[in-house]
Amino acid sequence: MNTFNQKLASRFLKTGAVCIGLDPEIGLIPDVLKKEHGTIEEILFTFNREIIDATADLALAYKPNSAFYEAEGEAGYRALKRTMQYLREHYSEIPVILDAKRADIGNTNLGYVKAAFDDLGADAVTLHPYLGKETLLPFLVRKDKGIFILVKTSNPGSSEFQNVMTANGTELYKTVAERVASSWNENGNCGVVVGATYPEELRAVREIVGDMPILIPGLGAQGGDAQATVNAGKNSHGGGMILSSSRGIIFASSGTDFADAARKATEKLLLETKV
Amino acid sequence: MNTFNQKLASRFLKTGAVCIGLDPEIGLIPDVLKKEHGTIEEILFTFNREIIDATADLALAYKPNSAFYEAEGEAGYRALKRTMQYLREHYSEIPVILDAKRADIGNTNLGYVKAAFDDLGADAVTLHPYLGKETLLPFLVRKDKGIFILVKTSNPGSSEFQNVMTANGTELYKTVAERVASSWNENGNCGVVVGATYPEELRAVREIVGDMPILIPGLGAQGGDAQATVNAGKNSHGGGMILSSSRGIIFASSGTDFADAARKATEKLLLETKV
Repeated sequence: MNTFNQKLASRFLKTGAVCIGLDPEIGLIPDVLKKEHGTIEEILFTFNREIIDATADLALAYKPNSAFYEAEGEAGYRALKRTMQYLREHYSEIPVILDAKRADIGNTNLGYVKAAFDDLGADAVTLHPYLGKETLLPFLVRKDKGIFILVKTSNPGSSEFQNVMTANGTELYKTVAERVASSWNENGNCGVVVGATYPEELRAVREIVGDMPILIPGLGAQGGDAQATVNAGKNSHGGGMILSSSRGIIFASSGTDFADAARKATEKLLLETKV
Repeated sequence: MNTFNQKLASRFLKTGAVCIGLDPEIGLIPDVLKKEHGTIEEILFTFNREIIDATADLALAYKPNSAFYEAEGEAGYRALKRTMQYLREHYSEIPVILDAKRADIGNTNLGYVKAAFDDLGADAVTLHPYLGKETLLPFLVRKDKGIFILVKTSNPGSSEFQNVMTANGTELYKTVAERVASSWNENGNCGVVVGATYPEELRAVREIVGDMPILIPGLGAQGGDAQATVNAGKNSHGGGMILSSSRGIIFASSGTDFADAARKATEKLLLETKV
């Protein structure tokens, strides 16, 4: 078992399957933090740190989404880097998945590999499949890391291409899942992404990928049903799921009790998703 | 015609179709620059500035690829931002395409929109199609910008999914091109990306998308043939192509004459790609 999968598996035994999306949208961050901290970097980092400290014994993993940091330019980049450092220094046993949804051609991916794994120190990253395995090799050769390929995304319009029927009689998302399971996973470091909003597709993907980890966003704010998701998503050991919720946890309260409310929302989701 | 397409069209009349990829891979930057400038930010920015100053009367557009900057963390981010500012201040008539290959779900894309257009000030951006139109609307509603959707990429293994035959009897990349042309382009701001390494697919995409701009990377270092590309890629007005070369131009020489060599390589490619 590779480094990332080991970390994930031992963590799952202690916590359950809930992953917390660290998506600190500046407009939704409680005013109290904005008044106390003058710079965007401090606001974003402090918000994350308080959420992390309040939930670190409960979280299977943390998943910062790069877009929310990039939106704030240099300050956002520094807040993300400090968040990653903080997690490594204080909670090194918790896997961190950088939700960056990258993918470029071969030599260009080396830049993204360096950014995600070496500069930011993520344990895993999310990638688009459209360009194919050959060109994603700079990610796939990283035996120590987790590589999550988008298969069936949680958004309402994800069927436009993902559910296109192929000449083989299977939808495209199943073709992608099959390729990841049969060919891309040579180093045992692949996982797939399937939205909680599509339990039927989640069940189909679980059948295709065996016990491979499935990152499942879309619980909570996006409306995915917790128990249906668990039933469809669990592997033969009752695990292999990373059930990710962002806004439903981190913005559970906009008051001074935001960190406490995030903890309570995590506890609630852990109960709802017990296997 | 939208702002970006207008800028592109008037520029094309003056320069021809060659776009220069500003991909300053640190390991390939001439030693002379590294000795003269102490910081990575200065090295990357100075390299770009000298390439730009030497080619600005010839370039249809510039296309920085985000990965090469992200690889250098905060210093890379600052070098990219300064490069974009420099282009706006000194050469505001030249379109700048941020090759970021982004795409996330709806509200998350707002972060990438803010980063690409508001923070960095790009005129256009490249996007993955896999998540569908509905979720890419935060990009597609930007009537003032150019939105380039990956259709058939230049890498050797791009057929794995892009050439999957659909139940309708057309390859997936054609399905994507058809959707972009018939549905995504409501604001007249879409373009597509097709690699110069696939002239046959380029011809097929041109037939599907009409006169829409096609961003065509893969000339030069990646081996795309210039005349075959032009014949396959031009629209009914003999234009609509953005022929992008990166390494073949910016790393034409590793000596002190690198900027001059970039200019000569651009002139050569302009001659080879005359319509």
